[in-house]
Amino acid sequence: MALRTRLTEAFGLRHPIVLAPMDPAAGGALAAAVSAAGGLGLIGGGYGEHDRLTREFAAAGNQRVGCGFITWSMARDPSLLDAALARAPAALMLSFADPAPFADRIHGAGIALICQVHTLAQARRALEVGATAVVAQGTEAGGHGLTARGTLAFVPAVADLIARERPETLLLAAGGIADGRGLAAALTLGADGALMGTRFWATREALIHPAAKQRVLAATGDDTVRTQVYDIARQRPWPAAYTGRLLRNAFIETWHGREDDLRAHAAERGRAVTEADAAGDYDVANVTVGEAVGLIDDLPEAGALVRRIADEAEACLLRNARLVAAS
Amino acid sequence: MALRTRLTEAFGLRHPIVLAPMDPAAGGALAAAVSAAGGLGLIGGGYGEHDRLTREFAAAGNQRVGCGFITWSMARDPSLLDAALARAPAALMLSFADPAPFADRIHGAGIALICQVHTLAQARRALEVGATAVVAQGTEAGGHGLTARGTLAFVPAVADLIARERPETLLLAAGGIADGRGLAAALTLGADGALMGTRFWATREALIHPAAKQRVLAATGDDTVRTQVYDIARQRPWPAAYTGRLLRNAFIETWHGREDDLRAHAAERGRAVTEADAAGDYDVANVTVGEAVGLIDDLPEAGALVRRIADEAEACLLRNARLVAAS
Ligand SMILES: Cc1cc2nc3c(=O)[nH]c(=O)nc-3n(C[C@H](O)[C@H](O)[C@H](O)COP(=O)(O)O)c2cc1C
Ligand SMILES: Cc1cc2nc3c(=O)[nH]c(=O)nc-3n(C[C@H](O)[C@H](O)[C@H](O)COP(=O)(O)O)c2cc1C
Repeated sequence: MALRTRLTEAFGLRHPIVLAPMDPAAGGALAAAVSAAGGLGLIGGGYGEHDRLTREFAAAGNQRVGCGFITWSMARDPSLLDAALARAPAALMLSFADPAPFADRIHGAGIALICQVHTLAQARRALEVGATAVVAQGTEAGGHGLTARGTLAFVPAVADLIARERPETLLLAAGGIADGRGLAAALTLGADGALMGTRFWATREALIHPAAKQRVLAATGDDTVRTQVYDIARQRPWPAAYTGRLLRNAFIETWHGREDDLRAHAAERGRAVTEADAAGDYDVANVTVGEAVGLIDDLPEAGALVRRIADEAEACLLRNARLVAAS
Repeated sequence: MALRTRLTEAFGLRHPIVLAPMDPAAGGALAAAVSAAGGLGLIGGGYGEHDRLTREFAAAGNQRVGCGFITWSMARDPSLLDAALARAPAALMLSFADPAPFADRIHGAGIALICQVHTLAQARRALEVGATAVVAQGTEAGGHGLTARGTLAFVPAVADLIARERPETLLLAAGGIADGRGLAAALTLGADGALMGTRFWATREALIHPAAKQRVLAATGDDTVRTQVYDIARQRPWPAAYTGRLLRNAFIETWHGREDDLRAHAAERGRAVTEADAAGDYDVANVTVGEAVGLIDDLPEAGALVRRIADEAEACLLRNARLVAAS
């Protein structure tokens, strides 16, 4: 069996599953594993660093993978975008700032542009710049985003906007999707596929310390929170409304709600966080995952995971059709 | 055609659709219309008032309807619960406080107990008190709730908990569901049905001022916010973490983020809100709806709406099964 959608057709995929370009979890090995299994792997270009980009594209070998950037950060050195485009990526994804300044360069290179959005207003903007695909991200997502919209009501609203204004645009759902039920629900809501971060974070290939991965196995979806404390400690100039969804830990308990205090000690706290990350101390360092952690209880290989989610989604869609009875 | 689920079987419904017991929108006429169309209508018992309860049960006539309370408020006068149980309601729903003090009385009366929950910890508690059905409400919901969980990842997590700990419990999804896509997605995620507020708020029968209903037709899902400003103005002692999701308006722009100031002028602001509500001035009075507003563009009769949503959901489930192709 196979799930055929506009996304699988457009990108030549076996499964409508896209790996989120997570910084730093989604390296070349993870992206290549997802692509090899028939999904679409995106390397996390993150804040942007030429060495890392070169290394991770190399790690992806000959697999066809894409790449994603934190747009406002990449904008400080747009040669990063040129470097990524020179790799002829399967897609280039932009998140967390207006994509307009970079859209023409990506279109000009003949590369598919994916824009991640968190509000309907941002979705409209993505259509204006001619995005190939829009990722509608709900607030349950791991990592950065807004509190504006939940995935369940946001995806159909963006689907309606696309149908009205630019029907050729593809739609991916993101935020809270970690298994076949979630993928099937995303398609049901009008998406052409799902982009998943948290679920792929918890795989063997993810570039994440084993001690952090262990925490996630024990967590429930009640255990995450949106906060700016790590962005403050790391002195990262995120646009004001953005927060990161993370697993609660001692550092967050200490500083969340005391942001002004933290700002006063940012340099020192930032060093402590960096050291803790290297040492595998996740009472201090961040564990960046979303509410989908509550649906995760293993650390599989990414390829096997892609196939499992696709199989579950197919079974789920067939089973649900049987709820409809001749009456 | 018909959609058969454990919910429709248990309650003898034609459609797995439940009207949320909205204060004050869900009066007897709305509840009766939903039940008459084959869903389950719940009267909004709200904060609790004997006169209103008597009036709205009378307005429901002979239709089999249930009733829901804001538990911490009803607890100030539990004779309200006795009055509701004396009506032999189709179900009694408790929200926004520990249901334990009232569960035995409801079970003893042989009435189905529905518990609304916003976290996995609350879901566990609902199973402990023997809830017939659990409503897993995500933060996109209109009205009161928490910011803890989004519907998409919360529903399957509660479904897994139920399967593990008390499989006979029914599960309803709530928050952001306003059409057949949302209902179909809820079932896909493991729910037995959907509880909808915002969508039924925007019907002819809802006990809401016409000027408020008009605002909703023009709004998108970006236009709502979770806030405590109206609870402060109305001096309602909500437990600390609860906020109400409302349509943004001038009152919220003025006071959200200035809660301490507002507290100092609560009595006066509260009177202004009450007057504005009577006068149909929704720059000042609250319009209580969730992110699902973005999916609403009409004010139909509730019965026709129930049938439309069910039809859409059935078509959606059948269409999605066709995405699965023999490969
Ligand atoms: C650890 C982690 C890092 C992330 N980093 C990025 C990033 O660098 N760029 C980006 O566009 N999105 C990033 N995201 C967000 C994802 O693109 C996506 O929206 C999110 O993971 C979807 O929700 P989910 O985590 O519930 O699957 C990150 C997410 C996680 C969990
Ligand atoms: C106007 C309004 C009033 C509400 N009042 C109540 C209430 O009195 N008691 C209650 O349990 N839930 C109440 N709710 C919440 C609903 O039970 C339900 O969780 C919510 O409407 C579901 O999300 P939706 O609005 O996106 O459908 C209310 C919701 C709205 C929109």
